[in-house]
Amino acid sequence: MIILNKQQILDKFDADAITLLLKQGFIAFSQKQVQMPPVQHLLFEQANGDCCIKSGYLQGDSQFVVKVSGGFYDNPAQGLASNQGLMMAFSAQTGEPQALLLDEGWLTALRTALAGRIVAELCAPKHISAVGIIGTGMQARLHLMYLKSVIPCRQLWVWGRSETALEEYRQYAQAEGFEVNVTLDAAVLGRHCQFIVTTTPSREAILQAADIQPGTHITAVGADGAGKHELTPELVAKADKILVDSRGQCTEFGEISSAFQQQLLTNHTLTEIGIALAQNTSFRDNEQQITLADLTGLGIQDVQIVKGILK
Amino acid sequence: MIILNKQQILDKFDADAITLLLKQGFIAFSQKQVQMPPVQHLLFEQANGDCCIKSGYLQGDSQFVVKVSGGFYDNPAQGLASNQGLMMAFSAQTGEPQALLLDEGWLTALRTALAGRIVAELCAPKHISAVGIIGTGMQARLHLMYLKSVIPCRQLWVWGRSETALEEYRQYAQAEGFEVNVTLDAAVLGRHCQFIVTTTPSREAILQAADIQPGTHITAVGADGAGKHELTPELVAKADKILVDSRGQCTEFGEISSAFQQQLLTNHTLTEIGIALAQNTSFRDNEQQITLADLTGLGIQDVQIVKGILK
Repeated sequence: MIILNKQQILDKFDADAITLLLKQGFIAFSQKQVQMPPVQHLLFEQANGDCCIKSGYLQGDSQFVVKVSGGFYDNPAQGLASNQGLMMAFSAQTGEPQALLLDEGWLTALRTALAGRIVAELCAPKHISAVGIIGTGMQARLHLMYLKSVIPCRQLWVWGRSETALEEYRQYAQAEGFEVNVTLDAAVLGRHCQFIVTTTPSREAILQAADIQPGTHITAVGADGAGKHELTPELVAKADKILVDSRGQCTEFGEISSAFQQQLLTNHTLTEIGIALAQNTSFRDNEQQITLADLTGLGIQDVQIVKGILK
Repeated sequence: MIILNKQQILDKFDADAITLLLKQGFIAFSQKQVQMPPVQHLLFEQANGDCCIKSGYLQGDSQFVVKVSGGFYDNPAQGLASNQGLMMAFSAQTGEPQALLLDEGWLTALRTALAGRIVAELCAPKHISAVGIIGTGMQARLHLMYLKSVIPCRQLWVWGRSETALEEYRQYAQAEGFEVNVTLDAAVLGRHCQFIVTTTPSREAILQAADIQPGTHITAVGADGAGKHELTPELVAKADKILVDSRGQCTEFGEISSAFQQQLLTNHTLTEIGIALAQNTSFRDNEQQITLADLTGLGIQDVQIVKGILK
């Protein structure tokens, strides 16, 4: 069995090659060529942590993938990363373990950020006067890094709960070439930005319907389990078009799940990313629409990123 | 992270200590003290294989466990074991991986056999003139090995599909101290045996209702996924008392699931092993009853056996 540590994995990471694999994966998923059992969730209240276990198999592949991915939000106080976890590849011919990727949660963060870039290609409005990032953690950084290649705007607003974290993020984003404004008031961010990414594990809404202007796109990344959400159901319902990674997962526990379960989306079509990619045109119909993408994270993304690392 | 190979794991294996942990685990599960998400199943038709992914956390523990367990039934032709897989322990405080147990499926096989021994203590009739084993594989061997300490009978009938496999099993069981009869006709086994264990991944019934005498106990181990079964629904319905490891799992995909879904069990109580253990008396009320135990395998068993190995 191959065992790779984080550095060995990052050395093999090719963002563009893996983005192509991720697109193929989303399409295969929407075409029902992927076995992807329902996600397992564990909750560790005493540690302010959670864990999800995802697995997937693309029909015809020589391997299948299992991923264990934890978020332990008190870790940074101990000098540990919030994101934890590993990915494994097994032979689809014999079941033998083939590779253990001790990625410390990086591959999950990276494939999520790359999914965000794919969404940006599908949904970003033409004219963006500022990009908005809700959150200051790992995903907030990676997402921004990969957005750079598809969004030319370098004006940035960042929202966070901690001034210290905002200041650290400011330095990061400035080094990435952005002019950075920080705020503790998400409504201010909403008023300035036409491309917004929400990246927190919040269990209460951060953005309200009134905060968002026509022509805005929002990518909601944080909600990947029951109870997590960053947008009010009214804001979700205000979106003109909604993109989801998985209709099943998003309506069950994604950002849109509350609005869906409250019957606020009965007039909306929920389009899977794989369907939108197969159509090969912009998801956005005009510059006035509010578009929303809900990313819960799919086992097929783990399958594809592991394939990209081990190729 | 600790990495243990099969031999290192087996060196640390203490059957009696782990049996005690398993009993505590079954009880905790039935008392709702265990987080155990629904099992993930993957199917590899081209390889005659399947895989299940189980995870579990006993409230208050310092670790949680994830298990990947494959059955690839063409492996023996290549000189590989059918059972494959590994178990992992993660910190419930930080999410960090703590231990990787490369057990090649052995811990799953062992905790299943030990669960069978726990069931035998609860259900075995007083007078057993012969033990019957359906199947000739790993589980058929381990199960017999551990039954020895709770069932004094040393008369054995074994059913299999291959005369070669039956002959190999005969030699194994003779070395374990049994007088062995082999048969290709399960009905013959049913007529001679009052304690029967079914251990195959069969997708068609092997034992019929007419094959079983009053006063018999059957432990059904093989069915752990949709479509697998070894008993006809009529035989399941003929049982006077039914023990299940998990009411949810057994009615969804266990041996009893067909009978349950066909509404043949409306007059039966499905008693969880953890409930029966907490009552601390024999599950069998008299020597005429047919008792049936359906073991689908619980994530809490994996939690407990990993705890036993790492203690």
